[in-house]
Amino acid sequence: MANLPALRFVEVGPRDGLQNEHKTIPLNAKVAFINALSEAGLKEIEAGAFVSPQAVAQMADSEQVFKKIQRKRGVIYSALVPNEQGLERALAVKADKIAVFTAASETFNQRNIRASIAESLDRFAPVILKAKQAGLAVRAYVSAAFYCPFEGKIAPEKVIDVVEKLIDLGAEEFSIGDTIGRAAPVDVRALLEILLERINADKVAMHFHDTYGMAVANALSAWEDYKVSGFDSSAGGLGGCPYAPGAGGNVATEDLAFAFSASGGKVGVDIGKIKAAAALLQPHLGHPTPSRLGRIKV
Amino acid sequence: MANLPALRFVEVGPRDGLQNEHKTIPLNAKVAFINALSEAGLKEIEAGAFVSPQAVAQMADSEQVFKKIQRKRGVIYSALVPNEQGLERALAVKADKIAVFTAASETFNQRNIRASIAESLDRFAPVILKAKQAGLAVRAYVSAAFYCPFEGKIAPEKVIDVVEKLIDLGAEEFSIGDTIGRAAPVDVRALLEILLERINADKVAMHFHDTYGMAVANALSAWEDYKVSGFDSSAGGLGGCPYAPGAGGNVATEDLAFAFSASGGKVGVDIGKIKAAAALLQPHLGHPTPSRLGRIKV
Repeated sequence: MANLPALRFVEVGPRDGLQNEHKTIPLNAKVAFINALSEAGLKEIEAGAFVSPQAVAQMADSEQVFKKIQRKRGVIYSALVPNEQGLERALAVKADKIAVFTAASETFNQRNIRASIAESLDRFAPVILKAKQAGLAVRAYVSAAFYCPFEGKIAPEKVIDVVEKLIDLGAEEFSIGDTIGRAAPVDVRALLEILLERINADKVAMHFHDTYGMAVANALSAWEDYKVSGFDSSAGGLGGCPYAPGAGGNVATEDLAFAFSASGGKVGVDIGKIKAAAALLQPHLGHPTPSRLGRIKV
Repeated sequence: MANLPALRFVEVGPRDGLQNEHKTIPLNAKVAFINALSEAGLKEIEAGAFVSPQAVAQMADSEQVFKKIQRKRGVIYSALVPNEQGLERALAVKADKIAVFTAASETFNQRNIRASIAESLDRFAPVILKAKQAGLAVRAYVSAAFYCPFEGKIAPEKVIDVVEKLIDLGAEEFSIGDTIGRAAPVDVRALLEILLERINADKVAMHFHDTYGMAVANALSAWEDYKVSGFDSSAGGLGGCPYAPGAGGNVATEDLAFAFSASGGKVGVDIGKIKAAAALLQPHLGHPTPSRLGRIKV
């Protein structure tokens, strides 16, 4: 696939993955996990979230995580921030990038962050402005971009509408989420066909969950058919969503990397080391990680 | 996907799936499994194999299986046969169809059935002839059609060569196997591009294993890009291959059916009932089935 772009993985295991684990993962295990991910060649790692510890207890030690990790040169360590207070915390620990979080479905956004889409965008406006003034890059999650567990199929136009408002606010990169893993390649193509009329493919990262086993097919389609090169994934396939009934984990970074590599893509990561990073967490999880490659010797 | 053909699933769980299970599955459990698969809407079920019980102990009771299952009208119950003796056994229990088994890789065929490809074809010649004289349909497996665990990448031309020889012998349908689950959609398209110059898409069934998580992507690509409608799969994702190191199970019937259905395909099966059929085996397996849909409520 000579004409297809090299892959850019955004490792969301330490945040999107771990926030849905029932057991509290010790600080040192999180730090070791992130350090191992850096060593595996991943160039962007979402290392934590500066949210309320009442809302997401697993992320309560994100400051400590940022302070204790070994930062590898050339790797971006980002943090999810919901508001200005979160941004202050991210700035205090010198996060390289922040991510804000909204949805293409009103009902999902209400259940997930107890705000309408418009309210969440209003809340992000000063956050994005101040982050950029401080020299931080800003990514925006648009979740439930294909299906909503409450509203069903989401029209691509709703995604475009939210993305355009985020562009106006100054967000520079958009993570388009199939939060419940219900999209098929046909849905991915339908959305990208019109989304990429508005923004360049290099500003897009697709964020697939592997609930029904379609994440790899969706990712390959986005890359092969639309030259999207950015993909969010989670080592071991950790994750899920407490507000999305039945949601499975993020697609496993090692499974995606294997599929892209088998398809001729330049992945720039060491699959064995990604598996080893996920294995570090294993004793703390209380369940096996769901990745395909995790089950076999590679 | 208005122009795409309705799907035809060949359920291989009772044979390809079970033959690789370590624990002996009781006869009654096999019969209940097959009956439940019939009730789930599957129109073709490979119910057993008439091979040497020394070679595959799990298939030693295939005669009993054929005698005890409730045959549903319109459902084809097929059997794998390696030789004339196997054919006699299949005829004695009134199997509707037989399947013969060779490979596109010399080394794999040697390890799997201790014969060169040419020797296996010689052995099949009278089997296919007599089966057709007796009014049975004949399917031919061509395994290791993309990658061989011993030889690596297999050139599409090797597959074409074997298929053409099987056509000359009278085989009517070809199951093209990615035995170790190593193919990506790019490989599937490369093979189908030249295979479908020789035979019609409706004579082809793709047989994917989900070792690395690419089976769903491969199946969707074969269907969407080349209008192949036949797919082998195994309820629960049972399977593997004792002669193929690291091989994972057959792609799960319920995962494939979900993905095709989500893509607008007519699947004609009840996904809940397929899951329920696989669940009947659960107490006898000693391990969870690996299907994606098996892990969640659908």
